Amino acid sequence: MLRPGQPLPLFGFFRRLLGQDRAFRQAIATVIGRTPDNVRLYHLAFTHSSVVRQQGDTARHQSNERLEFLGDAVLGAVVAEYLFRKFPYEQEGFLTELRSRIVNRESLNGLALKIGLDKLVQLDPAQGRAARSRSVNGNALEALVGAIYLDQGYKAARKFVLTRLIKPFIDVKSLIETTANFKSKLIEWAQRQGKTIRYDLTGQPRSGGVMEFSATVMLDDEPVATGMGLSKKQAEQLAAERALAALGV
Amino acid sequence: MLRPGQPLPLFGFFRRLLGQDRAFRQAIATVIGRTPDNVRLYHLAFTHSSVVRQQGDTARHQSNERLEFLGDAVLGAVVAEYLFRKFPYEQEGFLTELRSRIVNRESLNGLALKIGLDKLVQLDPAQGRAARSRSVNGNALEALVGAIYLDQGYKAARKFVLTRLIKPFIDVKSLIETTANFKSKLIEWAQRQGKTIRYDLTGQPRSGGVMEFSATVMLDDEPVATGMGLSKKQAEQLAAERALAALGV
Repeated sequence: MLRPGQPLPLFGFFRRLLGQDRAFRQAIATVIGRTPDNVRLYHLAFTHSSVVRQQGDTARHQSNERLEFLGDAVLGAVVAEYLFRKFPYEQEGFLTELRSRIVNRESLNGLALKIGLDKLVQLDPAQGRAARSRSVNGNALEALVGAIYLDQGYKAARKFVLTRLIKPFIDVKSLIETTANFKSKLIEWAQRQGKTIRYDLTGQPRSGGVMEFSATVMLDDEPVATGMGLSKKQAEQLAAERALAALGV
Repeated sequence: MLRPGQPLPLFGFFRRLLGQDRAFRQAIATVIGRTPDNVRLYHLAFTHSSVVRQQGDTARHQSNERLEFLGDAVLGAVVAEYLFRKFPYEQEGFLTELRSRIVNRESLNGLALKIGLDKLVQLDPAQGRAARSRSVNGNALEALVGAIYLDQGYKAARKFVLTRLIKPFIDVKSLIETTANFKSKLIEWAQRQGKTIRYDLTGQPRSGGVMEFSATVMLDDEPVATGMGLSKKQAEQLAAERALAALGV
């Protein structure tokens, strides 16, 4: 099969692999701002479960889902500290709400695209489009934070989150404004209509020691819309947002 | 009012304060296994909001609630890493479920008592008993983790969590067993009765980018009990637990 002068195919394979590896290492260094040590971790961070599922369920620990679990936790801690220091006079509920607006799926997907992670994520090409439309990139971003944590430690992961994600791309002020918006918009509308707004709140314990709150917007004592959340504020916020939609405001 | 020889009251006040401070510093050192640097942080960690509320709502940032927010996040990250390393072949759902069993209210309250935090927590004496019956000690433990993180850094907080809480007091194996118990107990019971068990699962997106799952236990296609949770496993587990109660098993 081999013509004279043609390199042995195995060598070609390794050369291609090494070249790819060098390019990947370089891409990671550009994204995280430092040279990765254990490159395997970063490969794992960008391996969507759809790629691994082809190889059967036993291989699922070779996808990025476990790293995503870890990275989500590290990201949560870093953002918690950032907000804790930035808002020394705000209460726990405010910090919780604001953090959830920074680390929610939509926000993480946006951040992942901004730092170009979509070019690094490996999907099963067969179901690529369906999978990509959801939260693939945001999950890969969480997994990347987990990989940096394991590879370089907490300080490096913290620095990545603060200097490459939060500070360049998160406009905390406008997040606070939109947080306040739904409830105040609803109240202003009701005042113009000469109606009253009140929230009916209930809380239910959920497994894992979590409380879940449900808030129902009452317009002149008639229920309009209900929102749920892990804090009263979150539940009311969502209820107000839905009430505005239901009322066509 | 002063008799000769009696020390000036102001001196007595300061001396008492300094003595208390030395004792407090010593108590913290015993609990966390190292000398605290910024003692104010630890005072804050043990100040329940009931003490501060007497001073009006503007002082609420002087209670431990904000530190609790931070400590909860740091604790979550440390436990995530611990489980990630301990169970290299388990999937995300398993790790999430197990973590929630380690850091839930009940578990944290128990850990707090084991390391003697109840003796350090400051409550409003007027409503002491009511407040103490709930999650005061567990919250103080989270706040303490937050204080260590700010005072001594992530590594020290991690070491405290691992060497003073998890390793001495958490029996991961038995946690896993009780996790598996409800579902298998229900299935065994159904088999003895010649009936079939199946779970109807639905998922709903919640604000903050979280999915909440609802699982209904179907006994021969009749709904018996429903559980909710932030993972499918958690929802099924709770549903099974409730079904066992409803069926009187």
